[in-house]
Amino acid sequence: MSFNSFGHLFRVTTYGESHGVALGCVIDGCPPRLPISEAMIQGFLDRRKPGQSRFTTQRREPDTVRILSGVMADEASGQLLTTGTPIHLMIENVDQRSKDYGEIKDKYRPGHADYAYDIKYGIRDYRGGGRSSARETAARVAAGAVARQVLPGVTVRGALVQMGPHKIDRSRWDWEAVDANPFFCPDPVAAAFFEEYLDGVRKAGSSIGAVIEVVAEGVQPGLGAPIYGKLDSDLAAAMMSINAVKGVEIGDGFAAAELGGEANADEMRMGNDGRPLFLSNHAGGILGGISTGQPVVVRFAVKPTSSILQERRTVDRYGRDTDIVTKGRHDPCVGIRAVPVGEAMMACVLADHLLRHRGQVGTPAAWPFEA
Amino acid sequence: MSFNSFGHLFRVTTYGESHGVALGCVIDGCPPRLPISEAMIQGFLDRRKPGQSRFTTQRREPDTVRILSGVMADEASGQLLTTGTPIHLMIENVDQRSKDYGEIKDKYRPGHADYAYDIKYGIRDYRGGGRSSARETAARVAAGAVARQVLPGVTVRGALVQMGPHKIDRSRWDWEAVDANPFFCPDPVAAAFFEEYLDGVRKAGSSIGAVIEVVAEGVQPGLGAPIYGKLDSDLAAAMMSINAVKGVEIGDGFAAAELGGEANADEMRMGNDGRPLFLSNHAGGILGGISTGQPVVVRFAVKPTSSILQERRTVDRYGRDTDIVTKGRHDPCVGIRAVPVGEAMMACVLADHLLRHRGQVGTPAAWPFEA
Amino acid sequence: MSFNSFGHLFRVTTYGESHGVALGCVIDGCPPRLPISEAMIQGFLDRRKPGQSRFTTQRREPDTVRILSGVMADEASGQLLTTGTPIHLMIENVDQRSKDYGEIKDKYRPGHADYAYDIKYGIRDYRGGGRSSARETAARVAAGAVARQVLPGVTVRGALVQMGPHKIDRSRWDWEAVDANPFFCPDPVAAAFFEEYLDGVRKAGSSIGAVIEVVAEGVQPGLGAPIYGKLDSDLAAAMMSINAVKGVEIGDGFAAAELGGEANADEMRMGNDGRPLFLSNHAGGILGGISTGQPVVVRFAVKPTSSILQERRTVDRYGRDTDIVTKGRHDPCVGIRAVPVGEAMMACVLADHLLRHRGQVGTPAAWPFEA
Amino acid sequence: MSFNSFGHLFRVTTYGESHGVALGCVIDGCPPRLPISEAMIQGFLDRRKPGQSRFTTQRREPDTVRILSGVMADEASGQLLTTGTPIHLMIENVDQRSKDYGEIKDKYRPGHADYAYDIKYGIRDYRGGGRSSARETAARVAAGAVARQVLPGVTVRGALVQMGPHKIDRSRWDWEAVDANPFFCPDPVAAAFFEEYLDGVRKAGSSIGAVIEVVAEGVQPGLGAPIYGKLDSDLAAAMMSINAVKGVEIGDGFAAAELGGEANADEMRMGNDGRPLFLSNHAGGILGGISTGQPVVVRFAVKPTSSILQERRTVDRYGRDTDIVTKGRHDPCVGIRAVPVGEAMMACVLADHLLRHRGQVGTPAAWPFEA
Repeated sequence: MSFNSFGHLFRVTTYGESHGVALGCVIDGCPPRLPISEAMIQGFLDRRKPGQSRFTTQRREPDTVRILSGVMADEASGQLLTTGTPIHLMIENVDQRSKDYGEIKDKYRPGHADYAYDIKYGIRDYRGGGRSSARETAARVAAGAVARQVLPGVTVRGALVQMGPHKIDRSRWDWEAVDANPFFCPDPVAAAFFEEYLDGVRKAGSSIGAVIEVVAEGVQPGLGAPIYGKLDSDLAAAMMSINAVKGVEIGDGFAAAELGGEANADEMRMGNDGRPLFLSNHAGGILGGISTGQPVVVRFAVKPTSSILQERRTVDRYGRDTDIVTKGRHDPCVGIRAVPVGEAMMACVLADHLLRHRGQVGTPAAWPFEA
Repeated sequence: MSFNSFGHLFRVTTYGESHGVALGCVIDGCPPRLPISEAMIQGFLDRRKPGQSRFTTQRREPDTVRILSGVMADEASGQLLTTGTPIHLMIENVDQRSKDYGEIKDKYRPGHADYAYDIKYGIRDYRGGGRSSARETAARVAAGAVARQVLPGVTVRGALVQMGPHKIDRSRWDWEAVDANPFFCPDPVAAAFFEEYLDGVRKAGSSIGAVIEVVAEGVQPGLGAPIYGKLDSDLAAAMMSINAVKGVEIGDGFAAAELGGEANADEMRMGNDGRPLFLSNHAGGILGGISTGQPVVVRFAVKPTSSILQERRTVDRYGRDTDIVTKGRHDPCVGIRAVPVGEAMMACVLADHLLRHRGQVGTPAAWPFEA
Repeated sequence: MSFNSFGHLFRVTTYGESHGVALGCVIDGCPPRLPISEAMIQGFLDRRKPGQSRFTTQRREPDTVRILSGVMADEASGQLLTTGTPIHLMIENVDQRSKDYGEIKDKYRPGHADYAYDIKYGIRDYRGGGRSSARETAARVAAGAVARQVLPGVTVRGALVQMGPHKIDRSRWDWEAVDANPFFCPDPVAAAFFEEYLDGVRKAGSSIGAVIEVVAEGVQPGLGAPIYGKLDSDLAAAMMSINAVKGVEIGDGFAAAELGGEANADEMRMGNDGRPLFLSNHAGGILGGISTGQPVVVRFAVKPTSSILQERRTVDRYGRDTDIVTKGRHDPCVGIRAVPVGEAMMACVLADHLLRHRGQVGTPAAWPFEA
Repeated sequence: MSFNSFGHLFRVTTYGESHGVALGCVIDGCPPRLPISEAMIQGFLDRRKPGQSRFTTQRREPDTVRILSGVMADEASGQLLTTGTPIHLMIENVDQRSKDYGEIKDKYRPGHADYAYDIKYGIRDYRGGGRSSARETAARVAAGAVARQVLPGVTVRGALVQMGPHKIDRSRWDWEAVDANPFFCPDPVAAAFFEEYLDGVRKAGSSIGAVIEVVAEGVQPGLGAPIYGKLDSDLAAAMMSINAVKGVEIGDGFAAAELGGEANADEMRMGNDGRPLFLSNHAGGILGGISTGQPVVVRFAVKPTSSILQERRTVDRYGRDTDIVTKGRHDPCVGIRAVPVGEAMMACVLADHLLRHRGQVGTPAAWPFEA
C-alpha cells in the first residue's frame, strides 16, 4: 500500500509540492532496454506546461525534466536505454513567486483541499496549494511518456469534448485539430466558440468545468483481470485521482443506463483477418474488466477551478467566519490542462496491465480456441 | 498486488464461481473485539438475494453464510467477537440448475465477459457466467456487513435513482420508502411507475439500465489521502468493479462540468457547535481526496443486463459467425440488486480508509488549529 | 498490504484456526490452463500430516483438501485445469478433541504466542493455539503443491540436516533416504541415531530444535529483483514466517562471515553447452538478489517445541504469577514437519518471482550479450 | 508490489546508481507534525560515509542530504515538520571517479551481481556496480533517520560482533565503545585486535566477512501480525535485502536449534510495575511474530567483499573464459558499514509496524485482561 504510488508492476511514486524545491516521480518496474530521453519526455511536459496561452495560468514554469537514474547510454548510439532499475524523473520548481500567502495561509478556500488537509494532518503546505496543487500532475505526464514506450503499437490520445454546458459536435471530430487550438478540442468550430466563451468566463473572474475524453487504440485484448484488478476499475481510480475530477465513464457511461439490452450489446462477426470483430463499441473496449481489442474509451468530468476572483464565504484556522477572494494566477478552465494528464494516466494504467497480463498468462492460448 | 482483493488495511479477497461449489471472502485486517454474527450478515445478504420479486432472477439461492474463522465466542454473552485474524465467510451454492450449457459454452454472448475471458485465459468456466457472474457480489455484501461494524456512527444507504431514461423526483426522496418496493427506490411514485415499466421490459425479453446512489452519513473528516489513495479514487475503483457498472460520480459528478466556480464552491460558516459547516455539498463530502465530514455521495451507472431473449449476432470459439438468444433466469434490470452491493463497497472503502488514517495520523490535531 | 497473504503475482491468503471449522487458502494470480487435482495436492499434505509416526503429534487429522473454485474440467480428459481465477483450497478440521482448555485459556505458555496475541488484540482463540498453531501450515503445503505446477523443470526438495546439536554427515547425503525415515533425513546413519535420540527427548517430556535445508534445482536464472524484491529477501521472509523458525541462511549463510573474499567467490568458466558455469555455490544460487541458474539453497533453524511436560513459571490473564505444564499431543521436534512446509514456501516464492520476472522483462536478451 | 520499495504504511522507495547523478528515497506515509532536519539525517549518514578510516573505501563522498519535499517550517521555531505528504531525500553523487571501466564492463566479477543483472535485464549500469552497489544503502540510512522520529522512546543500536572467525567477548559489551573504534565494535579488546587483523587482510588484497547485531529497546508490545506480516519475517526480509547479507537470526537464532524446550522457553513473572516480565530473552523479543516488549534482537551475516585484488577465473559478455582482478577503492570488510544500515532497516520496519498496529487495533485492550 502506498498513498502516493499507483500501478503495480509498472509503478509510479510521485513527490513534491507546488512551491517546494522540486517535484518528480520514481518509476519502478519499467522493462529494460527501452529507449527514453529527456527530450522525448519534455515534449509531453510542454503540452501540459502553464503559460501556453491566456487560457491557462500565467505562472511561468519551464518544467524542465531530468532523468536521474535507471538508464544507461547505449555505447554505439548514445541513446539512453532503461535498465530495469528505478527511473527518477525530476522537475525543479523555478517560478515560486515570492509573495505574501497571508490570505490562504489561514483561510480555507471553498472547493479547495485546504480544510481537508488541515483536518487530516493538522498542518499543510499552503504555498500555492502545496501537495494538492495540480502541479503534481507534471510528474504524471513525465511518467506517462515512459509508459508509452512500454506500449508499442498503442496510440493514446485525449481531447476536450465539453466546456461548461457546451458539448462539441462529434461529427466534426478531427484528431489533427486537437493541437491546433489552446483547448485540445477536436472540433474546430467548437474551439472557436470556446475562445470567446472562456474569455468571458475569465474576465468575469469566474471559472468553468469541462469533460475530457481519452482514447487508446491498438490495445492488446486480454488486459485487465477479474474482479478487483479490472481495467476499467483501475482507469476509474486513475482518472478520479486527477485534481478536480468528479466523474468517470467508460464507453457509453451514464448513457448506458438509459439503454435497453439489445441496443447496448456490441454484436460480433468474424473479420476478414480471421479474428472476431465488434460491430459497435458501447462497452468502450472493456468487457468483464478485460480489454477486447477495441479502442478503450474513457471520459471524465472536471469541476470548475475553485480559485476565483469572486468573494466567497468561509472560515479560518482560528475558527472564525470570514470571506475570501482568491487572487493569483489560475486556469479559468482547469480541464484544459487535464487532457495530457488523462492521456498519461491511461498510458500508465495500460502499461501496468500489460506487464501484469504478461506475468500471469505468459503465452496466450491460440485463436480460435477450438478447431 | 492481488487481482481478487480490495482494500489495504481492511482487505477483502473473494473467490468462487456462479456454479461452483461455494463462493465467499476472506477479510484480513479487521480490528479485534468487534461483535459479528451470521444472522447479522445474513440480513444484508437477504436484501441482495435473487428471487425476491418477479423483477430479479428466479434462481433460488438461500445464500446462507457461515463464519469459518476469525471469531471467538465471548464467554459471558456467547456473542461472537472478531479476533484480529482472517475472517472467512462462505456461501455454498445450492441451485446450480443442472442444464445444458451448449449454447453459451461455445458462443460469446454480446455484452458479456465470455469473449474477454477466453482471449485472456484461453479457458473459462462458462457455467452461469463463472467468475464474471454477479453472484460474486454476494461475497461483497457479506464483507460489507463486517465493514459496517468497523464504522460506528456511520450510516451507509443506497437507492435506485434512475431506471432507463426515467429519473426519480428527488423532492420526494424518502429513505423509508427504499425497502417498501422491489426497486430500492426512495420515490414511492417513481417506484409505482417502475413496476409497470419494468414489467414491459421483462415481457419484451429485453432489459434496462439504472443509476444507483449511495450516501454515507456520519463519516469522520480526514479519511482519504493524497494523491493516489484519495477516498474518491478508491470509491470510483470500488464501484467500477461492480458488474455492469460503466460510470461513477462523486457529488455533482458530470453536472459539475457545467458549473461556474462560484456555483460549485461549497461555502463555509462556523456552526453552532463551534465546528465549521458547509453550506452546500456539490463536492459530495470529499475535497482533495479527503472526507470533510459532510455526507459522502456516490452515484454509478449500471448498463442493461446483457442476457436478453432477443437474438443477437456473435461468433463462437471455432471462429464462426453465429446468432444467440440468452435463455435462462436473468434480472431484467441488474441495477436493482446493485444497490446493496454499492452500499457494501462504500462500507468497505470507508472501513479501510478509517484504519489507514488511524495508522498514519493516530491522534489528530486539535481544532481550531490556531488559538 | 495484507497480514495473512504472501506473494504478489502468485499470491496466497490463508485463514483458519487450529480448532476452528476449517482452514485453507485462496491462491490468486495462478496462471491458467495448469493441471491440478485434489489427489495431487493431497499427496503433499499427507507428508506433513500429523500422526504419521510416534515422533509427531498424535492428533489424527485426515487433512482432506477440497478445491472449491478456480478450476474447470477439461472436457476430453476430465482433468481439472486452472482458469486464472482464485483457487480456494479448504481443509475441514475433524479432530478438535473436545477438552477443557482451562489451563491455557488463562495462562501464557512460555515460548508460545499466547501473551503476544493478548497484548496485541486483547482477545485470542486459545483452543489449540488458534491462529498461531502450526496447523496453519497445512494451507501453505496445499498452496505449494499448486505453485509447483507453475514451475515445470524445477525440483524443490527439503531435508532435516540437524537435530539438537547433532548435524548430519553431508557426505552421506541421499535424497532417496529422505522419505525412508520419519525425520526427512538424507543421512540414513543420522536418521537411525535420531530415532533413539528423539525417543529420549520425548520420554523426558522435553523437546528439541532442528535445522532444515531446502534446495531448488532447475531454477531459471534472472528471478528476483533489486533491491527490496530480492529473491533471497523474499525467501528469508517466507521461511521466517514459519512457526518456530528463528534463523535463515542462503548458501553458506553465517559461515560466509568467516571466509575471505577469494574463498567465497564462486568462479566461472564457459560450460560445454556454451553457457557460463559456476565452479562452486557459496552464494546458494543467488547474486545481487537474482537467481543465477545454480541450485537455490536455503536453511532455517527451528526452535524446540514450546509445549513441554516440564513445569515452567509464567503469569495469567489476571496478572498473577503461576506455573504451567503443557499437556496434550505435541511434536517433540516440530522441525520435522517443517520440511514439507519449507518446500512449499520455496515453491511459492519461486512461482511468484517467475511471474514477476515474466511480467517485467518478458523476452530476455540473447546470450552471449555481445557478439 | 514494488521492487524498490519496502514497508507498507511507512513506505520507502529508493532509486539511484553508484555513479549516476544522484540517489535517494521517497518516504510515503510518514505521520505529520514530526520534526526532522537535514542536520539530523546527516548525522546518521556521516556514520555510514565512506572514507572515514583506512578500513573503508577511499572513495570520498560527502553524502550531503537534501530534503526536497514533504516538510513545512514551523512559523514560530523555524523547525521543519513533516506534513504527511511524501518526503524526498536526495544525495547527489560527487566522486564518481572518471576512469576506464573496461575490465568490469564486459567481465563478470565473481561474487558480484554483474552476471545476474545481465542475465535478467540484458543490460546493466556497470559503473561502480550501478544499482547493486552498496551506495544505495545511503538512502536507507537517510530513511532510517526519519523512521526514528516515528518511534519515540525506542533506541535502535547496532554493533559488529564478529569479524571473520573472530567473535567478540560479549561480557565486555559496552555500547559506549561502539563509536570509539572504526568497526562499530562494542568490545574494546576485540576492536584493537580487529585493527591489526584487518590491516593484514587489506594488505593481502583480500577481504573478510562479519556478523552484525542490531538491538531495539523500548519497543511497544503488540507490533507485528500473524501470519505473513510477522515482525521477524519483515526483519528477516529487511536485513537480507542489504548487500552481501547471507543469513539472519532473531534472538538465539541457529543456536535455538540446539536447545531443549525447557532451556529455550522464556519464563515469565509479574514485575514490580504490575506488568509481566520475561526472565530471559531467547526469543529476541518476538513471539508468534509479535513484539513482547523485550528488546528486539537481530543478527545478520555479511559475506566478504567480492572485489579483491587476487585474480579469479570468470567469463565475459562475449561468452569467453577470462580472469579478473578487481582494482579500485573497496571496503576490505563491507560488514563494518553495514552496521548503520542494519540500524536503519530495524527503525524502518518498527516504524511501519507501529503504524500498521495503530491502524488495525487502535486502542489496545486493558491489562490485565481479566479482573
